Amino acid sequence: MASVSTEPSRRATSHPAAAPSPETLKRTALEEALSPTSPSVTFPASDPLPLDCGKSIAPFTVAYDTEGTLNAAKSNAILICHALTGDQYVLRQHPVTRKPGWWDEMVGPGKPIDTNRFFVICPNILGGCMGSTGPASINPATGRHYGLDFPVITIRDMVRAQVRLIDHLGIGQLFAVVGGSMGGMQVLEWAAHYSERLHCAIPIATAAWHSAQNIAFHEVGRQAVMADPDWADGRYQSEGRVPRRGLAVARMAAHITYLSETALHAKFGRNLQDRDARTFSFNADFQVESYLRHQGSTFVDRFDANSYLYITRAMDYFDLAGEFDGVLANAFRGTKARFCVVSFTSDWLYPTHENRKIVQALNSVAANVSFVEVESDKGHDAFLLHEPVLFKTITGFINSAAARHGIAPARSA
Amino acid sequence: MASVSTEPSRRATSHPAAAPSPETLKRTALEEALSPTSPSVTFPASDPLPLDCGKSIAPFTVAYDTEGTLNAAKSNAILICHALTGDQYVLRQHPVTRKPGWWDEMVGPGKPIDTNRFFVICPNILGGCMGSTGPASINPATGRHYGLDFPVITIRDMVRAQVRLIDHLGIGQLFAVVGGSMGGMQVLEWAAHYSERLHCAIPIATAAWHSAQNIAFHEVGRQAVMADPDWADGRYQSEGRVPRRGLAVARMAAHITYLSETALHAKFGRNLQDRDARTFSFNADFQVESYLRHQGSTFVDRFDANSYLYITRAMDYFDLAGEFDGVLANAFRGTKARFCVVSFTSDWLYPTHENRKIVQALNSVAANVSFVEVESDKGHDAFLLHEPVLFKTITGFINSAAARHGIAPARSA
Repeated sequence: MASVSTEPSRRATSHPAAAPSPETLKRTALEEALSPTSPSVTFPASDPLPLDCGKSIAPFTVAYDTEGTLNAAKSNAILICHALTGDQYVLRQHPVTRKPGWWDEMVGPGKPIDTNRFFVICPNILGGCMGSTGPASINPATGRHYGLDFPVITIRDMVRAQVRLIDHLGIGQLFAVVGGSMGGMQVLEWAAHYSERLHCAIPIATAAWHSAQNIAFHEVGRQAVMADPDWADGRYQSEGRVPRRGLAVARMAAHITYLSETALHAKFGRNLQDRDARTFSFNADFQVESYLRHQGSTFVDRFDANSYLYITRAMDYFDLAGEFDGVLANAFRGTKARFCVVSFTSDWLYPTHENRKIVQALNSVAANVSFVEVESDKGHDAFLLHEPVLFKTITGFINSAAARHGIAPARSA
Repeated sequence: MASVSTEPSRRATSHPAAAPSPETLKRTALEEALSPTSPSVTFPASDPLPLDCGKSIAPFTVAYDTEGTLNAAKSNAILICHALTGDQYVLRQHPVTRKPGWWDEMVGPGKPIDTNRFFVICPNILGGCMGSTGPASINPATGRHYGLDFPVITIRDMVRAQVRLIDHLGIGQLFAVVGGSMGGMQVLEWAAHYSERLHCAIPIATAAWHSAQNIAFHEVGRQAVMADPDWADGRYQSEGRVPRRGLAVARMAAHITYLSETALHAKFGRNLQDRDARTFSFNADFQVESYLRHQGSTFVDRFDANSYLYITRAMDYFDLAGEFDGVLANAFRGTKARFCVVSFTSDWLYPTHENRKIVQALNSVAANVSFVEVESDKGHDAFLLHEPVLFKTITGFINSAAARHGIAPARSA
């Protein structure tokens, strides 16, 4: 059952003054998928991960990043679960895009999740493409990229892999599990199946299932990817191709769902892009078109198309009540964890009423839950953005729970 | 300035017992684009249609259908303006799909728009693909399908072509101009630029401009079409190809916006399609996936991909206030027309607040306007569906206005 742990290689990377080409980015992204610069742990073939589909996967790797110091009692660990296109680079610079960590406003020294006080762990999900085993990984049975030979996974499977990581790190109980969007789904799976292993659960802007509309948008994205001849039935890596156009369209469609109508209007309205008048063409006349095209093309540079298929599928399959005889409350019966559920008024992807269902289920089993609906016009993306009320909510909840849990205050800077 | 009018050929069509193949449907659709079974009028090269882009188009054809009898005073004509993927077959069977007319619950003998009382005219829009001149038509300059040589048109251009048709039919003033969605945009253009030529205007489930979110969804659709190698830079017809996959993805994305989250949930929820359990694959496990795939593939059989690009572009360019110094009320100043504006509570594509802006503009110039927000959970599609409150609203408005206008009651059956 020995696992092989790898310290961060912090791969030597040239930092060209000019922005790297899409080809360079794509190559770097594939390197990260196969050999991450972050720490990782590989569980050997003798220690397979059983999956909901009935298959198992072995060996498998979990790439992760950490920040802060685990205290002697090992009581101050916080697990961050990332969303669909996120990764372990929660507060550190992304090794492909060179952008800051995706949640560095929430996590870091002096931030709501204060790395001067807590030991933060953020793993790349199973099925991802930043070093944890996923469809871009090499299938030991064939020596080629898994592609569609990768088993279809679930949110619960992702959590199973995370549990292995936490075991490997020698942590019995996490102080908190935190995540937004798909990250929130993982939080709920943790709370439902491993309630004794977390003290607090913080699901943000999420849902206990994927609605018909959620599934519909994902299906559009998958069909867009699969319609691209360069997808090549999932074998594009082996064939040296990249389904750029299909994945870009998928990302564009998804991106609209992350923003509110109000946010799109405030940000772009009907403003024209670098021109004074309509061109009477199919150019990106409008700023919103230009913005979406940019979102699509930059996403392709860093993300694996097959990972996108597998992760969206896992989200569509997510139905926590379905794992508990159709009764969501059963998922939380007897839990001792403290919950903080957060939603945003303008989030139409995982709207407040879906978050409220989670709260109602928790209430019905007399769980300790606080619920905050944050007033925001930023849509679903609000959980990733500068939202002072969100930060205040998380800070207050965590500090209060940490004090009761006997965790020492933050080291002074 | 002579125009050539063609009576319906009612092309002899075989009615095979089995459903026709996609290839047969596609061939029939192209035949309809080039030579419609409905009546049509062709305006000769000597009588070009000037367009907003600065170009003009000639010759050009307007295909249309009519029902009912024009009275001696020519005072009982109602123009129906169709939506993005509609056509002239408002109450008659569609010659390609063999489905009933798209608004046969609203229009027909004894229906709210009663063809026993009114002479109903429904033209296929300029840029469409059911016989009016559009990108699938033959470009006289090259002898090939226009494709991307077709000029980029606007909603106002569509209305300009309709005005020519109404002139050709010898009708000075229409009793009413009616339309939902993009049809409603045409109604607004009629009211703004030809207010003396209509007695009533009935814009339903529409907006006076395309919002950033509206543009965003259309841009996704266009990018999906253009990403399909079979689109071939718009020359697919000449090359014997069909951009099936791209257009299907575009339709799937758009279709989600036509339904409310509630409607999707009520119709499909998370129900599985012809199976008892998840297959752990990328098959259409969920009914909503199967439904969307069906919507995509059947749409491709009947609709032209380039028309889809041009019409969505026209909608994105639509900004009625922009035609009147940025002040929407100016579009309606001095109008004597009576307006009936209708919206639906669950329509998130053209929500009530967009319809209300039209009403506010009308109110600010003291126009005669009634506004009804219909309670419905069917989303934008509600205007096409069985909505008794909508029918009652239209019936009441039309009958009252017709009585004042001195139009004889319906002939008894």
